[in-house]
Amino acid sequence: MRLEQQILFLKELDKLKHVIRQTYLVDETRQENTAEHSWHIAMAAITLAEYSDDPVDILRVLKMLLLHDIVEIDAGDTFAFDETGYEDKSEREHRAAERIFGLLPDEQGAEFMALWKEFEAVETTDSKFANAIDRLLPLLHNVWTDGRASWERHQPRFEQVWKRNVTGVGQASTDLWDYVQQLLKNAVDDGWLAAPEQ
Amino acid sequence: MRLEQQILFLKELDKLKHVIRQTYLVDETRQENTAEHSWHIAMAAITLAEYSDDPVDILRVLKMLLLHDIVEIDAGDTFAFDETGYEDKSEREHRAAERIFGLLPDEQGAEFMALWKEFEAVETTDSKFANAIDRLLPLLHNVWTDGRASWERHQPRFEQVWKRNVTGVGQASTDLWDYVQQLLKNAVDDGWLAAPEQ
Repeated sequence: MRLEQQILFLKELDKLKHVIRQTYLVDETRQENTAEHSWHIAMAAITLAEYSDDPVDILRVLKMLLLHDIVEIDAGDTFAFDETGYEDKSEREHRAAERIFGLLPDEQGAEFMALWKEFEAVETTDSKFANAIDRLLPLLHNVWTDGRASWERHQPRFEQVWKRNVTGVGQASTDLWDYVQQLLKNAVDDGWLAAPEQ
Repeated sequence: MRLEQQILFLKELDKLKHVIRQTYLVDETRQENTAEHSWHIAMAAITLAEYSDDPVDILRVLKMLLLHDIVEIDAGDTFAFDETGYEDKSEREHRAAERIFGLLPDEQGAEFMALWKEFEAVETTDSKFANAIDRLLPLLHNVWTDGRASWERHQPRFEQVWKRNVTGVGQASTDLWDYVQQLLKNAVDDGWLAAPEQ
């Protein structure tokens, strides 16, 4: 029956609490999991919606942010600067989306799948802002920990961090991108992010 | 500046990932924290919105569910059947709301405070449905673990569980309450929830 399919989907979602991300919590006691990260980005979207260059439908943004990482239940978390992992990320996540959203009644599974694909394509205003918020939080975690949240261990080049954020944050919000640029400059000045190569 | 107040609020929110609830995850390996629980109930609201007896504004429901437990950063999680804890719960949580939402720009803090108070008052259609979803998930965790998520340790009486859910779920959704009643009957039949007292 319909309700039982939906309840089974909600049971499956519990597994996202076991997917461990590269990013440490602000107090550096442990790495965060994807479920609690998903909550944090949802709260960030509500709090920062006013900074989108174009007006967003915040309900659609929230739905995308809340559900876009569900695929990690099967596909795992792929670290932002893991170039090998990115080679088959799309394929792994697509299979996961088919299986997990497929637990739902057909039209509801199709709605969630469409939102997931929209987030991944980064073409609409809503998905651009959702992606910006998803990029912003790991950067903030590093700023809050002088890079110990993940950059100290993985040593991304300045250009990698810049590129990820200029495309992620910069194309959705001039205000947030101005703020991020300042944070990156401060990080270089403070010595915990490598300076740009000349 | 405005944006820095909002970013400081988002940093403070990270602490919710350290607040441990009584409920165990479905695989029983550990207790869940309030941040990941908040994500789970948000997904449940999106998935089950159709079952509200009265139509809800799902964006307002989501905002309430995402932010209503933020007060636990200061006030801690009060277990559903902890009668002593409930004596000063309201006062503790009110002080927490004042402090944490007070980190935000005034009008935004006031908006979040109003949503929090609306959730707590359980008078509007949106807040009734949000409360129903918040009640439903811990019950489902117990159903998924034959009571080991929390009831086995705390041994609530049948009447306590019934009362919490008839007010929480029953006043928002006839369909979900019918389903919950069946789950409770099954739990008694299966022997992991005490039968009602005669």
